Amino acid sequence: MTVLVAGWVAIDEIETPFGKAAGQLGGSATCAALAASLFTDVRLLAAVGDDFPDELRSLLARDRIDLTGLATVPGAQTSRWGARYGYDMNSRDTLYTVVGVNADWNPRIPDGWERSETLFLAAGAPDLQRRISEQVSGKRLVMADTIQFFIDNARDELLATFRGVDFVSINESEARQLAETPSIARAARTLLSLGPKGVIVKLGEYGAAFASNGDYFVLPGYPLEEVVDPTGAGDAFAGAFLGFLDAAGEITPSAIRRAIVYGSTVASFQVEGFGPSRLLRLTRAEVEERYRAFRQLTHFEVVE
Amino acid sequence: MTVLVAGWVAIDEIETPFGKAAGQLGGSATCAALAASLFTDVRLLAAVGDDFPDELRSLLARDRIDLTGLATVPGAQTSRWGARYGYDMNSRDTLYTVVGVNADWNPRIPDGWERSETLFLAAGAPDLQRRISEQVSGKRLVMADTIQFFIDNARDELLATFRGVDFVSINESEARQLAETPSIARAARTLLSLGPKGVIVKLGEYGAAFASNGDYFVLPGYPLEEVVDPTGAGDAFAGAFLGFLDAAGEITPSAIRRAIVYGSTVASFQVEGFGPSRLLRLTRAEVEERYRAFRQLTHFEVVE
Repeated sequence: MTVLVAGWVAIDEIETPFGKAAGQLGGSATCAALAASLFTDVRLLAAVGDDFPDELRSLLARDRIDLTGLATVPGAQTSRWGARYGYDMNSRDTLYTVVGVNADWNPRIPDGWERSETLFLAAGAPDLQRRISEQVSGKRLVMADTIQFFIDNARDELLATFRGVDFVSINESEARQLAETPSIARAARTLLSLGPKGVIVKLGEYGAAFASNGDYFVLPGYPLEEVVDPTGAGDAFAGAFLGFLDAAGEITPSAIRRAIVYGSTVASFQVEGFGPSRLLRLTRAEVEERYRAFRQLTHFEVVE
Repeated sequence: MTVLVAGWVAIDEIETPFGKAAGQLGGSATCAALAASLFTDVRLLAAVGDDFPDELRSLLARDRIDLTGLATVPGAQTSRWGARYGYDMNSRDTLYTVVGVNADWNPRIPDGWERSETLFLAAGAPDLQRRISEQVSGKRLVMADTIQFFIDNARDELLATFRGVDFVSINESEARQLAETPSIARAARTLLSLGPKGVIVKLGEYGAAFASNGDYFVLPGYPLEEVVDPTGAGDAFAGAFLGFLDAAGEITPSAIRRAIVYGSTVASFQVEGFGPSRLLRLTRAEVEERYRAFRQLTHFEVVE
């Protein structure tokens, strides 16, 4: 089984209370692909400019990640993003966004990739997300994510994308904004009414909530004493979630819950280092150990 | 077994996006006493002025709440508090605080109350919390809560109180401020190093975290589609937590986890109405039903 991850590969410049890091591997597709590759085979569909450094490309060249779909567009500039986090990591200022090559990228799926079973439409232009999805004729499970920019600027297009997917993953503040309600539970239900079979609301350090027509699941955040850089946590979550489900080969309520715990577990590693540095050296054994710790940290008995 | 709840009984004026309510029964001891009385016998130690209306007193006069320690101080004014909540209920402006009778209340424990097994020192002046605790010679379990005012104005006194209790319950923002760290897990550990056996960090709609020297527990918030008035949720949590432990008669890690779930469950009811209105008509059967629902909403399997 294979997950096709479509989105941005970018170069990030991040400042947190722990320090600064420029020239980091970033973009919505990067951490999703790395996280999914812990569980299953991954195909990465993204575009960079000819300024994209070889050392960043080599970080993506991993056994389980097929880079045939990572297009280098001559004369174009790789997307770039700069951000600064505040003291508690919950506030973030975007310092700059250079859209570059992603301004008019119109991908063609490499031969054979149309048979990918699982598809993650990482944050990107909603109409492009739909055009990519249409090319993957063999898909059995599709999830879309987004960012506030597209809620603000392409709301109708975004709703059209959400109508056509199985799962939506979205940040808490974006869910509240899109559904026009302060309640997470109601926002999830509102988004569910658009058409997807399941909605994941990512709560940052507070965990995640999942709503489907038959189930509701809430998971607290994995307790961390130190968060170095929150960038990419949501993408790592999504990649691990889909990677686990793709490998599991079944989409039952129980498997979905386990996938959400895997997503949160991998996201909790992601924030321990700048950019994808922690993810790049993360092993499946570490993931399994923290999954079990997560169960122990959250378990309680029913009293009879 | 009995829980002695010491703190403020006040008259609240609350404004939320759902409406306004004046002349509400409020104060740190009120919801704690009502919540604890769902599980065990309660003794309420607080002071009001002779302006305290009979209809508010009658709301507190319940089978399992002993009001012998609710003193009416002639010529004094009942404490009053006015607040307005913002759209998402996470922001709150205090409009006014009239300290009134609590400015120089120096309680004497009624005869026999010194043998109370469980003691909740609801938010109040830290030196007064200690003087009350010293009078309860038969206590086996003591928990203290506080509010930001005392962190700002009586930090050393507050730390002295925390050193002498078994459990501390505190809001997330207060824990971060007191421990001078943005990490909830580290703040809990820092507070634990002061001396208490356990620290509960209340995360509002995101649930609660608990740290002891041998255990760490995280619980998400119970998902609610509508929050009418968050006032008193933390006090209801504390009252239910201690009420359950007092009735259980054992303070094991498993019982503490169950007590935290009961605390969150009762708090989730508390916010469904203005002031204590929902708590006043809440039944133990409703609590048990939601506890089981909470388990179902949070349970996930370990994969072998």
